[in-house]
Amino acid sequence: MARYKVTLEYDGSRYAGWQIQKKDPTIQGELIQAAVKVFDTDVLEIYGSGRTDAGVHARGQVAHLDVPSAKPVPPNKIKDQINALLPHDINILSIVPVESGFHARHDARERSYRYQITMRRDAFGKKYNWWVRESLNLSAMRSAAEILVGFHDFRAFGAKDKTAKSTTVHLTRLDLREDGEHLYVYISASHFLWKMVRRIVGVLVAVGQGQLTPDAVAGFLANPDDPEPARFTAPAAGLFLEKVDY
Amino acid sequence: MARYKVTLEYDGSRYAGWQIQKKDPTIQGELIQAAVKVFDTDVLEIYGSGRTDAGVHARGQVAHLDVPSAKPVPPNKIKDQINALLPHDINILSIVPVESGFHARHDARERSYRYQITMRRDAFGKKYNWWVRESLNLSAMRSAAEILVGFHDFRAFGAKDKTAKSTTVHLTRLDLREDGEHLYVYISASHFLWKMVRRIVGVLVAVGQGQLTPDAVAGFLANPDDPEPARFTAPAAGLFLEKVDY
Repeated sequence: MARYKVTLEYDGSRYAGWQIQKKDPTIQGELIQAAVKVFDTDVLEIYGSGRTDAGVHARGQVAHLDVPSAKPVPPNKIKDQINALLPHDINILSIVPVESGFHARHDARERSYRYQITMRRDAFGKKYNWWVRESLNLSAMRSAAEILVGFHDFRAFGAKDKTAKSTTVHLTRLDLREDGEHLYVYISASHFLWKMVRRIVGVLVAVGQGQLTPDAVAGFLANPDDPEPARFTAPAAGLFLEKVDY
Repeated sequence: MARYKVTLEYDGSRYAGWQIQKKDPTIQGELIQAAVKVFDTDVLEIYGSGRTDAGVHARGQVAHLDVPSAKPVPPNKIKDQINALLPHDINILSIVPVESGFHARHDARERSYRYQITMRRDAFGKKYNWWVRESLNLSAMRSAAEILVGFHDFRAFGAKDKTAKSTTVHLTRLDLREDGEHLYVYISASHFLWKMVRRIVGVLVAVGQGQLTPDAVAGFLANPDDPEPARFTAPAAGLFLEKVDY
């Protein structure tokens, strides 16, 4: 068996998420279909660093690809061959041979996301931004963000997920950056619970709108059974998986 | 009669261009449909600074809107009412009352376009860029661009158009700017012939690829009947109407 590390970007708008499904098109499904042709074998597997939901995008998703034997051509050529078969909105950025011990999910040290908010109606923005109509109190949002950074039990921010590991997460970064009429939320952690990024962003926006106080956010960490954060889940369209560090 | 000046942006991907058609959706058609409801009258007209082709985008198109009488609400409110009825990919940026003598097309002094070229496959880029695979000789492209700036007969760069005014055009700006893996072409003129921007961009790229020399470009100006520039028409997707000055 030969293993490759694949780094890719995708526009998630047209897909039912990362994970392969019987009916709907998915990123993993499209990758497998293209790789099967290039490696001329049905016996291959592609394993992502994590699943992304329907409508979520990636600028630096990582996966590992297993095939029965390495292809005797330069990896760059394999990349071009797979890309030539992929739809225009999925693009492999690099593909490199790795030792068989490498695992895209288990070995990931940190995942980084960026969430894009736009403060105005934008003819080009619907698939890539959450349009928030109210003006936001950024300093209140920053106070709430500070509370969330660090080691905490984020169970109140995670959707139920049978495959979930520990709900204790090391949130290493949660920054807000203004850029003209955009607001970007940068968020990095050891791992993420299902829907956790979108719930954190939704809760921060609720703080910015005055619907929640920073104290209430501290309460969500203290009470992992609190159902409140789920009410504020931000839309999928604004979310980008930026990179995965190993 | 009351006249308004409307400034708008649109993602042209889903539209058969600016001009209203019987069957296919167009920018002008969507605007009329929304304005008819907001002003509660069928007797209205929307006149653009110029037509854009299918797939061409705008960040600052201008049109004038005629209605039987002004609406007794602030223009900003009219803007919001029309936007609420428009599809997500058409967005009015401003609407202001103007005197009846103002004409969106005849009074325009200068139109400015930006053409976006990407040098790599890009999962997010297909609708907004022309992907050029070959590396480009920018200094040859800049030499050719210099030849085109000024007062010239651009007939060889224009498609046949019954409504066309003079084929002598004052090209005031033709700049190339690199930004990472993108190349942007900025182009401004008194007016443009049909397909002229896309043919200029296509010819510049051909120069960058070594298919044409800057001297050949000078020849296209000297021989208005030369059919050659039409062969190099750049795709619609990379083209953005940036602004119209009055």
